[in-house]
Amino acid sequence: MTSQPELVLYDSAISGNAYKVRLLLSQLGLKFQRIEFDVDDGSTRTAEFLARNPNGKVPTIRLADGSHLSESNAILYYFAEGTTYWPAAKRDRASALQWMFFEQYSHEPYIAVVRHWVAHLGRTPATEPQLPMRIERGYHALSVMETRLKDHAWFAGETYSIADMALYAYTHVAHEGGFDLARYPGIRAWLHRVESQPGHIRITD
Amino acid sequence: MTSQPELVLYDSAISGNAYKVRLLLSQLGLKFQRIEFDVDDGSTRTAEFLARNPNGKVPTIRLADGSHLSESNAILYYFAEGTTYWPAAKRDRASALQWMFFEQYSHEPYIAVVRHWVAHLGRTPATEPQLPMRIERGYHALSVMETRLKDHAWFAGETYSIADMALYAYTHVAHEGGFDLARYPGIRAWLHRVESQPGHIRITD
Repeated sequence: MTSQPELVLYDSAISGNAYKVRLLLSQLGLKFQRIEFDVDDGSTRTAEFLARNPNGKVPTIRLADGSHLSESNAILYYFAEGTTYWPAAKRDRASALQWMFFEQYSHEPYIAVVRHWVAHLGRTPATEPQLPMRIERGYHALSVMETRLKDHAWFAGETYSIADMALYAYTHVAHEGGFDLARYPGIRAWLHRVESQPGHIRITD
Repeated sequence: MTSQPELVLYDSAISGNAYKVRLLLSQLGLKFQRIEFDVDDGSTRTAEFLARNPNGKVPTIRLADGSHLSESNAILYYFAEGTTYWPAAKRDRASALQWMFFEQYSHEPYIAVVRHWVAHLGRTPATEPQLPMRIERGYHALSVMETRLKDHAWFAGETYSIADMALYAYTHVAHEGGFDLARYPGIRAWLHRVESQPGHIRITD
């Protein structure tokens, strides 16, 4: 017998995508080993890492059977299925996925990428011209979220789910990229609801 | 009694994302009404359309209960659940979602967007500087797919699933954006396997 956790998370402290996975695993009370990567220095592009995820990205997780799973929202699904974090009704599961695909296509490339450029890499001549468009689309994503939260407590159905975790990850640090949430009272109230869920951890934990 | 289909697909003939939905519904033998939109003239941004999908995108589908579901891959999930197109094993379902999130984050923004710019909108001073990076990342996505297909017939588990439909949609028209599939024999053989599935329809059907 060994006390080594069977789950190994190839992780990054600054990545909201990686944080999603830590948040869910913590809320489920699952133990896991964290191996930290720098997302900017090429260490996720080595032959060793590409054998785990040919797309060269964290988070990637080694499961108990030794296989590897990547894409943060697919990892959320894998661990949430069969728990209260994956909605009980099929229609609500489809809504959860709708919001998770929205997050990856219409939210993360703007809100997370602006944060990374502004807060971590610093503005460069290569990224500067793209900032106004990315900021505008980030605010558009926030307005879409606000529309939902005007008359709903959560994104999918009536309970806290992995759709909320997926959207929380980069929304709650959007200010690090300069996004102002003052005009989104629905989002601000929802952020507090997420933070008051049992087992919540912070991105810096 | 009415013979009107209950499902209404807000559609676009040139959109691979919309085609995914038509492909699955056809393979399932489900009838649906198509309402065509131009994705470039703002017609998905009217107040009427935003009431169906606040993110202003097709495909969006009106379900039999009158509610609306958007995000192509979430729509695929909704209709595939309970059929052979959604894998029977949980681990394979997670793989299907892994590839579907890969498709939306690492494939579509490059292969579909380059196709749209090159084949539909024409090159402009605004898009031209972004083309080399998008072409490079498109080829990277193809190489990740090729790695999988070197020793597997399908993306998730050992059967044709919605992960294959999601990736087929823009891969099979990648040449319209100038992508050359000659160096990807695994992808070319897989395209033929997808096309030989019962009930397959073309994007132009």
